[in-house]
Amino acid sequence: MTIDDLKTPCLILDADRMERNIARLRGRLDKFGVTLRPHLKTAKSIEVAQKVMSSPQGPATVSTLREAEFFASAGVNDLIYAVGIVPWKLAKVIELRRGGCDLAVVLDTVEQAEAVTAASVEAGIAIPALIEIDCDGHRSGVLPHDTKRLVDIAAALTKGGELRGVLTHAGGSYTAQGTEALQRCAEEERLAVVDAATTLRDAGHACPVVSVGSTPTAHNATNLDGVTEVRAGVFVFFDLVMAGIGICQIDDIALSVLGTVIGHQEEKGWILIDAGWMAMSRDRGTAKQAVDQGYGIVCDSTGKPFADIILADANQEHGIIAVRPGSDATLPYLKIGDRVRILPNHACATGAQHQSYHVVRGNDDLVEGEWPRFGGW
Amino acid sequence: MTIDDLKTPCLILDADRMERNIARLRGRLDKFGVTLRPHLKTAKSIEVAQKVMSSPQGPATVSTLREAEFFASAGVNDLIYAVGIVPWKLAKVIELRRGGCDLAVVLDTVEQAEAVTAASVEAGIAIPALIEIDCDGHRSGVLPHDTKRLVDIAAALTKGGELRGVLTHAGGSYTAQGTEALQRCAEEERLAVVDAATTLRDAGHACPVVSVGSTPTAHNATNLDGVTEVRAGVFVFFDLVMAGIGICQIDDIALSVLGTVIGHQEEKGWILIDAGWMAMSRDRGTAKQAVDQGYGIVCDSTGKPFADIILADANQEHGIIAVRPGSDATLPYLKIGDRVRILPNHACATGAQHQSYHVVRGNDDLVEGEWPRFGGW
Repeated sequence: MTIDDLKTPCLILDADRMERNIARLRGRLDKFGVTLRPHLKTAKSIEVAQKVMSSPQGPATVSTLREAEFFASAGVNDLIYAVGIVPWKLAKVIELRRGGCDLAVVLDTVEQAEAVTAASVEAGIAIPALIEIDCDGHRSGVLPHDTKRLVDIAAALTKGGELRGVLTHAGGSYTAQGTEALQRCAEEERLAVVDAATTLRDAGHACPVVSVGSTPTAHNATNLDGVTEVRAGVFVFFDLVMAGIGICQIDDIALSVLGTVIGHQEEKGWILIDAGWMAMSRDRGTAKQAVDQGYGIVCDSTGKPFADIILADANQEHGIIAVRPGSDATLPYLKIGDRVRILPNHACATGAQHQSYHVVRGNDDLVEGEWPRFGGW
Repeated sequence: MTIDDLKTPCLILDADRMERNIARLRGRLDKFGVTLRPHLKTAKSIEVAQKVMSSPQGPATVSTLREAEFFASAGVNDLIYAVGIVPWKLAKVIELRRGGCDLAVVLDTVEQAEAVTAASVEAGIAIPALIEIDCDGHRSGVLPHDTKRLVDIAAALTKGGELRGVLTHAGGSYTAQGTEALQRCAEEERLAVVDAATTLRDAGHACPVVSVGSTPTAHNATNLDGVTEVRAGVFVFFDLVMAGIGICQIDDIALSVLGTVIGHQEEKGWILIDAGWMAMSRDRGTAKQAVDQGYGIVCDSTGKPFADIILADANQEHGIIAVRPGSDATLPYLKIGDRVRILPNHACATGAQHQSYHVVRGNDDLVEGEWPRFGGW
């Protein structure tokens, strides 16, 4: 089967690029001697997971209990569910732990720690938890120097649960600009968890795991002293947001959406395709960057970008190809039925719109396989 | 089962509101004596389709061949696939027509008409096609007064295909403000197809179907003379974008996402929930409206909105609840594990993130059923 045989719109994964992206981050982290715990929320595919994890058993990170359940049933036995836990979700955590998966949870309040301890005692299974640290005011977590809250959570946990360690995510790094700013994000991320771990150790807790993670900081950290593991997700595919902040080049982006030309509006300089926002997602993550890529960069069917041609707008099942505003480029000649590939703003969001990856390598048009994706919670 | 038994995040459908929304548009169109051909791309559910269609057999509109296949296999036998056709998709159209579904296609070029005719002749089945008309410069279609192109397409079609009629979609109406502007959109939409149909009839073509459709124009048209049918989709659920342009009230919105509180950042005035953009979609359709609703309006678990409380930001599986900027409202007291419902910006996009609807009625917490949704192409 070749790309020309695929129904459109569909998702194309360039395995060469993906393998290069994985080798690049793994090589980088190996030099620091830290573990890569990839975030599987980006791919939601066992085939991709097996490429990106250090072993078929993990370790890895997940963002939903559905992911935990799926990957545990596929033999992954070392997982962190990296979204704040709530009491009623602990029954599923216990079920997966009983099945042999070392699934750890994340929390940032005494209330959650007490619930983890209570559930652990009731089940006769100590549920391991990591305390989430807020390194940049981006989302959830305890401030790294809030000693009382850290120690209170640890104390509540160790009455029957298990304090596995501390964890943070430098979400702010996605909007940082330039190497210096990214290196600063990475160092703030590191210091936040290392300081919190020191506080907990000073209070008598072992705190074995010190976990950081975001693709921008993983690729820019210059010091990972005290860090035991790095979580990152989007590095496996990369996307235009990552290219926009300089973490990758356009030709590192492994994911694209294949679409077919369905019409033209010549007076307007538009080519219409059958890939709209349902296929691309509504993500407009490059809108606030220096270069707004619309809904994505348009490439020919082999994946080679047309200069300054973007998916300028999208309806549910219609995409509008146009010259980038301000450019004097010419619209390529594409007739009805021709195929194009669109590089996405955000790989996690675009991937989620599809049920499988069609796997190609470089500009070879052979489709070497179809890998299913899953969704839901 | 009650709402408290549901795993979160998940999609809630208030069937009372949905039925009221359906009755409202149907009652309006009945007065004009035109057929409602609902667009099933919003719901992608046979249970909703059966409520919104005039009969179990249709008529209805679809945006993908996957939808056509699904609804045809469920007994719907009168469909328009309302996205420009390309030659290789005609094999599936013929297959569905052979199976007993009167599936019509849409096109706007002589090239497509010739492909439809060629496929019709080869299969021995006349494929009906509607010529798409561009009523407002929004997307695809022939300009209504481009007589030569209209007549050339019709001539190409009638050599073996079938000219079913003309069709347009007033996409521009989604950004219109006020009744007068909306009524003008509706009249422009009507005139575009009525004029095109007149041109075709003058050239000797019957042109039986004259099809318009968008939720804003369907609810604002004051004259539908010459129109035979109205397509509309989002009216079945409504959403904040529709409320923002005055087509519905907030308490007409039938779709919401149920989420659970997973944390607080008190200093920032944030409540975190487990419904992020994966559950809401990345749609920010209210961002350019007079009132920006963020990722949605926050309601209690019975669906009653908190005044001026919105989902201010979203990560993949984290939603951030905050007071609307500029408001002096107070954040509600919500503890970890409490549930909220979020009214979405765009029902089509939010629905697409989920695999089923959990059906409730009004503020009763009883869940009377779970209706599956499908996706893909």
